Amino acid sequence: METLGPVSETGAERRQLDVELGERRYPIFIGRNLLSDPDCYRPYIAGERVMIVSNETVAPLYLDAVRRGLDGFEINQVILPDGECYKDLTTLNRIFDALLERRCGRDVTLIALGGGVVGDMAGFAAACYQRGVAFIQVPTTLLAQVDSSVGGKTGVNHPAGKNMIGAFHQPRAVIADTATLETLPDRELSAGLAEVVKYGLIGDSPFFDWLEDRVPALCDRDATALAAAIARSCQNKARIVAADERESGQRALLNLGHSFGHAIEAGMGYGTWLHGEAVGVGLVMAAQLSERLGWLEPDASARILDLVTRCGLPTVPPNSMPSERWLELMAVDKKVQRGRLRLVLLKGIGNALLTADVDVEQLRATLEGPEAHGD
Amino acid sequence: METLGPVSETGAERRQLDVELGERRYPIFIGRNLLSDPDCYRPYIAGERVMIVSNETVAPLYLDAVRRGLDGFEINQVILPDGECYKDLTTLNRIFDALLERRCGRDVTLIALGGGVVGDMAGFAAACYQRGVAFIQVPTTLLAQVDSSVGGKTGVNHPAGKNMIGAFHQPRAVIADTATLETLPDRELSAGLAEVVKYGLIGDSPFFDWLEDRVPALCDRDATALAAAIARSCQNKARIVAADERESGQRALLNLGHSFGHAIEAGMGYGTWLHGEAVGVGLVMAAQLSERLGWLEPDASARILDLVTRCGLPTVPPNSMPSERWLELMAVDKKVQRGRLRLVLLKGIGNALLTADVDVEQLRATLEGPEAHGD
Repeated sequence: METLGPVSETGAERRQLDVELGERRYPIFIGRNLLSDPDCYRPYIAGERVMIVSNETVAPLYLDAVRRGLDGFEINQVILPDGECYKDLTTLNRIFDALLERRCGRDVTLIALGGGVVGDMAGFAAACYQRGVAFIQVPTTLLAQVDSSVGGKTGVNHPAGKNMIGAFHQPRAVIADTATLETLPDRELSAGLAEVVKYGLIGDSPFFDWLEDRVPALCDRDATALAAAIARSCQNKARIVAADERESGQRALLNLGHSFGHAIEAGMGYGTWLHGEAVGVGLVMAAQLSERLGWLEPDASARILDLVTRCGLPTVPPNSMPSERWLELMAVDKKVQRGRLRLVLLKGIGNALLTADVDVEQLRATLEGPEAHGD
Repeated sequence: METLGPVSETGAERRQLDVELGERRYPIFIGRNLLSDPDCYRPYIAGERVMIVSNETVAPLYLDAVRRGLDGFEINQVILPDGECYKDLTTLNRIFDALLERRCGRDVTLIALGGGVVGDMAGFAAACYQRGVAFIQVPTTLLAQVDSSVGGKTGVNHPAGKNMIGAFHQPRAVIADTATLETLPDRELSAGLAEVVKYGLIGDSPFFDWLEDRVPALCDRDATALAAAIARSCQNKARIVAADERESGQRALLNLGHSFGHAIEAGMGYGTWLHGEAVGVGLVMAAQLSERLGWLEPDASARILDLVTRCGLPTVPPNSMPSERWLELMAVDKKVQRGRLRLVLLKGIGNALLTADVDVEQLRATLEGPEAHGD
C-alpha cells in the first residue's frame, strides 16, 4: 500500500473523505459544528423518519443540536444506559422495542449519536431490523471518530468474548464533529489516541513521526492538530476497508494490539478498562512480543512505549490476570483459525503483519508482564 | 417470468436444483435418505468443525443419521426447545453460548436440522456469529423443505412482529430428505402444503392445476407426488430469489397470504397457530379481498378456497381478533412503506401483484370474516 505523504495540518475547517466501496460508497465529514448541519444528514436519509440512538451521557449534551440538523424529518429517539457493559443483546433489544413501538418500517434511518458502544449497537440494530435499514454514524468520542464509526463493523459483546455477535453493515455517512471532543473526559481522549497511534504503527510511519511531535498538542485538544489526526486516521482506515471490506486479508491488521486488548476487556469485565486503554497496553505488548521474537528493533519498541505513555495511556497489563487466563481469553479471539492463535505483530514502525507463527512460550513470557521481560 | 411447463413426477430419486446467486450459488438436494450422505455435506463445509442446531423433537429422530453423514468432522451440537414461541433473541443466544463454550472460530459450519424455526434461528446465528460463518440447511418439515430453508431469509420474532430481527444470509447447501416427512404430524404436513399452494397462486398456474389433481396423494404422503411438489416449489422459489435476493421487488410476492398470516400468528401468540395454518387462511383472505376489489373472478376464488380446504388447512380467521387489532398488527408488517400498508393480492391464479392500492373499508370487511362477506 502506498504511503500517504506528510500529515496535513490545514486548520480545523471542514474536510470530506470518502470510503470507496462501490455502490456502498460513503462520505466521512470532519470539522467543527457539523452536528446541526442539515447538509450532512439530508442526502443520506431515505425516508421521512429517523430514530436517534444515543446514551444518557451524550444525549443531554448533543441531542438538541442533532435534532436541529434533522428539522423536517419525523424524529424518534431511544436513550440507552452508558457503558461497554451494556453492549449486549438485552440492551440491543431496547432499540428494536423503540422501532416497533413507533411502528418504523424499512424506510427508517437510524442515527447513532455517541461513542463506539452506541455506534456498534445502533449499527447492528440497523443491520438486523427488518433484515437491514439505513444508518448514519455521528461519533462523539475521539475513538469513535478515528476508528469504530468507519468501516461497517457492528455488533455486541458476549460474556465470553468481545464483539462476538455482529454484522458488517456500512453507514450511509459518518459525521465527526470535532467540537464534541471539547467535553470529552481526559481518559476518553487518551483512549482514542491509542487507535490513532495504531494507524501509524500499521502502515504509516510519517504519521507516527508526526504524532511523536504533536502528541502534546493533541493532549491539549489543539483543534488543528486533532482535525489533522482524525482525518489522517480515517484516511488510513478508509483505504484499508476499501481494499478488504469483510476482513479476508489485510483488514485484520487493524486489530494490532486488539487480541491483547480484548482479553483485558473481557477478563476485567467490560467497562472496567476503556477499549482504547486496553488497546494502548495491547500495542505495547505487541511491540514487546515482536521484539522478543527478534522482529522489532529495541529502539523502535522503546519509541512505541514512550509514545503510548505520552498519550496518557496505561502500558502494563492488569497484574490480576494470570497467563493461563490470558491464553484462555485469547483462544476465543476472532483471529483464531483452525484452533491456531493468530496475532498482528510488528516488523517495524509502519510495518505490521498477521502471523500464526508465534511460540507460545514467548507469548506467555510477554503476558507475564514487563517484569518478566528479558528473563 | 416464463412458465415452468408441466409438473414432472419422475419418482422419488435424488434431484438437484441450484439457486443461482453468483458466488453465493448453492445446491438444493431433494430425495430419500440424504441425511447420512457425506456427499451432501462435505463439499460445503469449510473447516473441520460443525455445530448442529436442532430441537428436542427432531434430534431424537434424526440427529444420529446426520452425525453419520458428518463422519470425520468434529461434531458439536445444541438442542433447542421446540416451537415458534422460542424463536426469539433469548433462545438465539443459546446457540452463541454453545459456539463460544466450544471456542468455535470463524471456520465453524452450522448445520440447521429441523423445521423453519430451527432453520431461521441457526441461519441468523450463522449470519451474526463473529459477523458471519457458513451454514447448511437440513429441513425436516414440508414447510421448511419447500420454503423457509431456501433463499437466505433468517431471523427471530419480536413480541410486536414476526421475523422483525434478522439478516439475509444464504446457506451453502440445502438437504431436503423426503424420508423425514414420514414422521411429520398431519397438521405440519398441511401447514407445508399452504406454502406449496402459494407458489401455484403467485406465478405457476400449471402447478396449481396439478395440485388440484394431486392433493389427495400429497395428503397420503405419496413419495413421488411429494418429491415432485417439493422440487417444483423450490424451482419457483429459487428463480424468484435469484432475480431479487434482497426483496427490492418481486420477491415480495412470496409473501402472498403472509401479511394476514403474520397478524394471526402474532395476535394469537406465536405457536398457537402454525405458520402454515396462518398462511392457509391468509391465502383465502387474499383471494377474498382480491375478489371484493373486483380483481379476481369468483370462480377462481372458490377454487382457492376449495384447494386450501382439501389440504386440511383452516380457511377462516380466528373470531377472537377484532378488525382494529388486525389493522394494528398489519401496520407493523415489513411490507409497510411510508406508513402505507402494502399487500400481495391476486389478479388470477398464477398472477399475484404487490399493491398499496387497497381501500381500508374493503380490507376491514375482509378481516371481519366470511360471515361479513357480501354485505
